[in-house]
Amino acid sequence: MLLEIPKSEFKERQQKFIEKVEGRSCDVAVIFAVADIFYLTGFHFHPTERPIGLAVDSNHQFHLFVPQLEHEHAEEYSVVDHVHSYPEYPGIKHSMEYFKEVLIDNGFEGKTVGYDSIGYGSSMGYEGPSIDQLITAKSFQSLRGVIEELRFVKSRNEIELIKESCRWGNLAHRLLQKYTKAGVSEIEITTKASNEATLAMIETLGPEYKPHGGTAHAIFRGQIGPESAFPHAVTQNIILSKGDTLVTGAGASVFGYNSELERVMFVEEFSPEQEKHFDYMYRAQEVAFKAIQPGKPFSFVEEQVQEFFKQEGITELTRHHTGHNIGILGHEAPFFDLGDHREMKPGMVVTVEPGVYVPGLGGFRHSDTVLITKNGIEMLTYYPRDLNSLIC
Amino acid sequence: MLLEIPKSEFKERQQKFIEKVEGRSCDVAVIFAVADIFYLTGFHFHPTERPIGLAVDSNHQFHLFVPQLEHEHAEEYSVVDHVHSYPEYPGIKHSMEYFKEVLIDNGFEGKTVGYDSIGYGSSMGYEGPSIDQLITAKSFQSLRGVIEELRFVKSRNEIELIKESCRWGNLAHRLLQKYTKAGVSEIEITTKASNEATLAMIETLGPEYKPHGGTAHAIFRGQIGPESAFPHAVTQNIILSKGDTLVTGAGASVFGYNSELERVMFVEEFSPEQEKHFDYMYRAQEVAFKAIQPGKPFSFVEEQVQEFFKQEGITELTRHHTGHNIGILGHEAPFFDLGDHREMKPGMVVTVEPGVYVPGLGGFRHSDTVLITKNGIEMLTYYPRDLNSLIC
Repeated sequence: MLLEIPKSEFKERQQKFIEKVEGRSCDVAVIFAVADIFYLTGFHFHPTERPIGLAVDSNHQFHLFVPQLEHEHAEEYSVVDHVHSYPEYPGIKHSMEYFKEVLIDNGFEGKTVGYDSIGYGSSMGYEGPSIDQLITAKSFQSLRGVIEELRFVKSRNEIELIKESCRWGNLAHRLLQKYTKAGVSEIEITTKASNEATLAMIETLGPEYKPHGGTAHAIFRGQIGPESAFPHAVTQNIILSKGDTLVTGAGASVFGYNSELERVMFVEEFSPEQEKHFDYMYRAQEVAFKAIQPGKPFSFVEEQVQEFFKQEGITELTRHHTGHNIGILGHEAPFFDLGDHREMKPGMVVTVEPGVYVPGLGGFRHSDTVLITKNGIEMLTYYPRDLNSLIC
Repeated sequence: MLLEIPKSEFKERQQKFIEKVEGRSCDVAVIFAVADIFYLTGFHFHPTERPIGLAVDSNHQFHLFVPQLEHEHAEEYSVVDHVHSYPEYPGIKHSMEYFKEVLIDNGFEGKTVGYDSIGYGSSMGYEGPSIDQLITAKSFQSLRGVIEELRFVKSRNEIELIKESCRWGNLAHRLLQKYTKAGVSEIEITTKASNEATLAMIETLGPEYKPHGGTAHAIFRGQIGPESAFPHAVTQNIILSKGDTLVTGAGASVFGYNSELERVMFVEEFSPEQEKHFDYMYRAQEVAFKAIQPGKPFSFVEEQVQEFFKQEGITELTRHHTGHNIGILGHEAPFFDLGDHREMKPGMVVTVEPGVYVPGLGGFRHSDTVLITKNGIEMLTYYPRDLNSLIC
């Protein structure tokens, strides 16, 4: 049972990143994105006012720059060559002045410096200089999207972690369905289901399991009854009623890797109108599954789904594209969108979730997490999709 | 019982923001920060690949720009004059091309345009042009920090919501302490306590309660035994042992407002070494409480605490500053930091949390949420602070 990315894989990622940096004619690089620092080093952290950065020097040494309070944590849990720290933010001497010293001491001046963001960014009260205000470079060159692109195709280990995530999302969803009934608040149902699934998960996986994100959970996010017609609503603490259309969501983070499982469910009973729109959604998802073919562009899937909606005359009931890549983040590029022409490749993990939204009646959206294979797809989520299985 | 910010208060915030914009000689403004859009409009959303922005025109009309899937949600829940939407991101026509039309149609061209970030930023696969690539302005001028500063001093309603948050954080912490025992995983304890407190919370507050964030929770974040010496560790799924030093955290989001309650606890027993460091921490927090005086700079509190640590000869055991403002975000500026000379004012809500960290032994940090008053402070968190009350 795999519960973490091995150290050797972080080293391989770093090697690939260096090749990309050199391919862009950069000598050195500075990275601030939280997900990308985790991807390259295994260092999982919550961004706050205190800046954190990763610097790669021209000798391919990886330097992690953290506040002093993260120093031992970084030494113990990250795969890097050097950990540097500063006393505190903002400090008498600004944190970024310490970063400047790290950069200068490691030969970043006069070089072509690749960067993802020109400075650290966090909404939690941080302010400070950008790196082009800290050092004199030969030039600064954006590497935006480079690591994101390395993350597109998943390794075998990453796929194993996502499968593990699917397993516990499935349990949480099973419990969600079990506890769903009229007269109860969405929060009561979701906390009971999430709690019970999490307890089973940690008993099963043991202390080797590191979430690096949320443990097992199943939620409604306010998508209950007519409110389910708002596709990305937030938890509203709604009391369920008989006949409500529900749109759920379930998953679990396993060493920072995520999956997505969503289902339309009905409370006790459903009308012919609800059944009709469930059926549209169900068939649209089938269209999408068939359209996923390596070598074709992501837009192809959306085109096929849109064509289906057009044939059925319900284009005006759609609100969003068919899905997205998933992994460290809940949504990752590329997208099953008319405007995204990047190529589908074996090893990518995507969500398939065309939706139909009927004002006053509700929303209809299943989401499954799917692996793109050489020949088509492998379903990673495995919760029943048919209407009869989804009555509470 | 207040469970939301009234519409009139959002209108007042907008008026104050317009005064600031005009005070900076800007004609119009564009805002992308999630917390600031919520603060000004009450629109709570999860940022994804789909850009969202707020534009304020020269007639003081507030325009919310959202993806189509958020349109009805925005119409129903936000306090703005106009909601504009685009089909999908990236779309055949890029989302930002629609934003460009909104800006041009509402007279943003040729104006002095204030902005917080020059473009939408989200790690979830978004890429697109910045606003200076969309329109031709007289000039672009950063308004970074302007709304953050409006958020420094809390209104009566905001303080009420934070007090409500403290109440449920307290219950979650009480249950956390009740369930804490040797041989059990941190996740089991925290999920049981958080679940039970959340159920009590929603039964008490009823469906009018909107979390706009996490419901009641109490956590350890891996701060258990020797690992508690890592002050901002992340959940590690550690099994507790007799004699462990624990550092907890508890709170609840109430209409997007948060509080912070943290306690050092010991599992069953404690050594003289643990007691000694508990005592340092306890007294350091007392020093901080006394040092909070409106009119003095934030740095004054940190200076006093550092002076105490120096007198005790334990400066090398400290890892971070004494606290921060809190409200919509878990950490907000200003900070009790040697380098932060902003003024303490009545109505600010802050955390007071000096910490002592002993490698191999553990971390020692209480955090209380405190209102700055005309004369000093009012404690908003009310969990016992003394050692005898904190043995599990």
